[in-house]
Amino acid sequence: MTSESPNALYFASLRRLFERTPALSFVKQTLEELAPGQARLALEPDDRYNNGAGCIHGGIIATVLDGVGWFACATRSEGYWLVTAEFKVNFLEVASHERVIATGELLKKGSELFHARMDARTEGGRHVASALATYTLLPRKFRP
Amino acid sequence: MTSESPNALYFASLRRLFERTPALSFVKQTLEELAPGQARLALEPDDRYNNGAGCIHGGIIATVLDGVGWFACATRSEGYWLVTAEFKVNFLEVASHERVIATGELLKKGSELFHARMDARTEGGRHVASALATYTLLPRKFRP
Amino acid sequence: MTSESPNALYFASLRRLFERTPALSFVKQTLEELAPGQARLALEPDDRYNNGAGCIHGGIIATVLDGVGWFACATRSEGYWLVTAEFKVNFLEVASHERVIATGELLKKGSELFHARMDARTEGGRHVASALATYTLLPRKFRP
Amino acid sequence: MTSESPNALYFASLRRLFERTPALSFVKQTLEELAPGQARLALEPDDRYNNGAGCIHGGIIATVLDGVGWFACATRSEGYWLVTAEFKVNFLEVASHERVIATGELLKKGSELFHARMDARTEGGRHVASALATYTLLPRKFRP
Repeated sequence: MTSESPNALYFASLRRLFERTPALSFVKQTLEELAPGQARLALEPDDRYNNGAGCIHGGIIATVLDGVGWFACATRSEGYWLVTAEFKVNFLEVASHERVIATGELLKKGSELFHARMDARTEGGRHVASALATYTLLPRKFRP
Repeated sequence: MTSESPNALYFASLRRLFERTPALSFVKQTLEELAPGQARLALEPDDRYNNGAGCIHGGIIATVLDGVGWFACATRSEGYWLVTAEFKVNFLEVASHERVIATGELLKKGSELFHARMDARTEGGRHVASALATYTLLPRKFRP
Repeated sequence: MTSESPNALYFASLRRLFERTPALSFVKQTLEELAPGQARLALEPDDRYNNGAGCIHGGIIATVLDGVGWFACATRSEGYWLVTAEFKVNFLEVASHERVIATGELLKKGSELFHARMDARTEGGRHVASALATYTLLPRKFRP
Repeated sequence: MTSESPNALYFASLRRLFERTPALSFVKQTLEELAPGQARLALEPDDRYNNGAGCIHGGIIATVLDGVGWFACATRSEGYWLVTAEFKVNFLEVASHERVIATGELLKKGSELFHARMDARTEGGRHVASALATYTLLPRKFRP
């Protein structure tokens, strides 16, 4: 039994949580990678996400950023629920009709609060958004 | 002809813009009110918006807040496009299976930037979220 | 003995804490008012606070906003320490050579987190800045 | 004449601007490095910056972060003034009686807005804070 095994089991439970979360199917995302303190999600192109100017609505980008920060933190929450306390996002470039890749990185794991940084980029590498978020640890588990 | 007429025509054009914006139908919102520097949107309950804990996902709330701030600013942009430069949202209480009312208020109209404050409350009056945002004026019009 | 007495004693202890906090003397502030869930601070004019353009530096304004949000929350923390988890400030107008009044309002008192909204205005009423912050409750008291 | 020369002259003018800015002497900072799109400032320890718990006040940290983001952007503003439109900071760890190093990185240079990311670390490498900011370009120069 290798040292990766506990993470592999835990990450599988995070993937199942991802699959059964309604909002992550509604704003259709793919969980591309989990690693300790890190996550990567992809948003597939869909014209229903567009704002009036034909670009992906900022709220849709924010939904993916919030989610990827949550999963980056959850890789280190040991089965406990996290809830988003706040997030903040700067929009750098618009994206339109293209895949958007969001990455999340745990900056600090405190006893009650987790801080994360998130970025969104097009597959071509344009930097779409940068974000920071705070998640609160709840005293109940999503996984026994 | 009353002094309300120019606003009435302009607000009608904002309502048409609202109706034809894909993301505002996708995350189904109702434009309840426009007034100079103010807007109110409602998010109808839909279980597809839920996070893994059965509450409305923060990104969905953020989508409505971004939108209501945009419309509050657009009431004063004289037909020019605005783009979200950044926003920040603090989540105060969870909402589940209920209507969420978002209000936006223009705080400052500058020559290039508009600042807005937004709040989301349940119909029962619970304060779900508070937000701040900055919108940039673009040099092109959505309305001739 | 009136119902105000417990608050009066507690607010006196907050005023003593204010008086002995080095940063609040360094960036010279006056604690003008405390009420349950609310606080008001004033920043006296001082040219040492200026940025290169002759206006009060945003960081100095942020210092006062962070402080007034902290005191608004501390009015309801029952003697427990709070620490700033994060804040965000939008700068609406510049201030120069004038008194700046900052107001703080507790938006939500949770079991671990307090959310506050803060605003800064000149004495003439110009809206200088608007802010949101999150404070974390610590398990130790500043007052027995 | 090397390709570095224009930058060297321009960075010298930024250093003179730094030296004559009152707030950067008041909250005593050292401009350690400028490079295209990047800046590094140091805050020297001073007990007058302390909050009531004996740690450096968040507003003082925010002052340095706002400044380092400003200088990172100003390296690319070609002599034009920038003004802070908004900033947001997450506090990860406290710092006390120690040097704090702040780094700023230009994320996006738009026609009107510059976005930057900033971080503060102790000399020992503890991550004190992470921040994002938006700066607006003004149509006047600090340098002819």
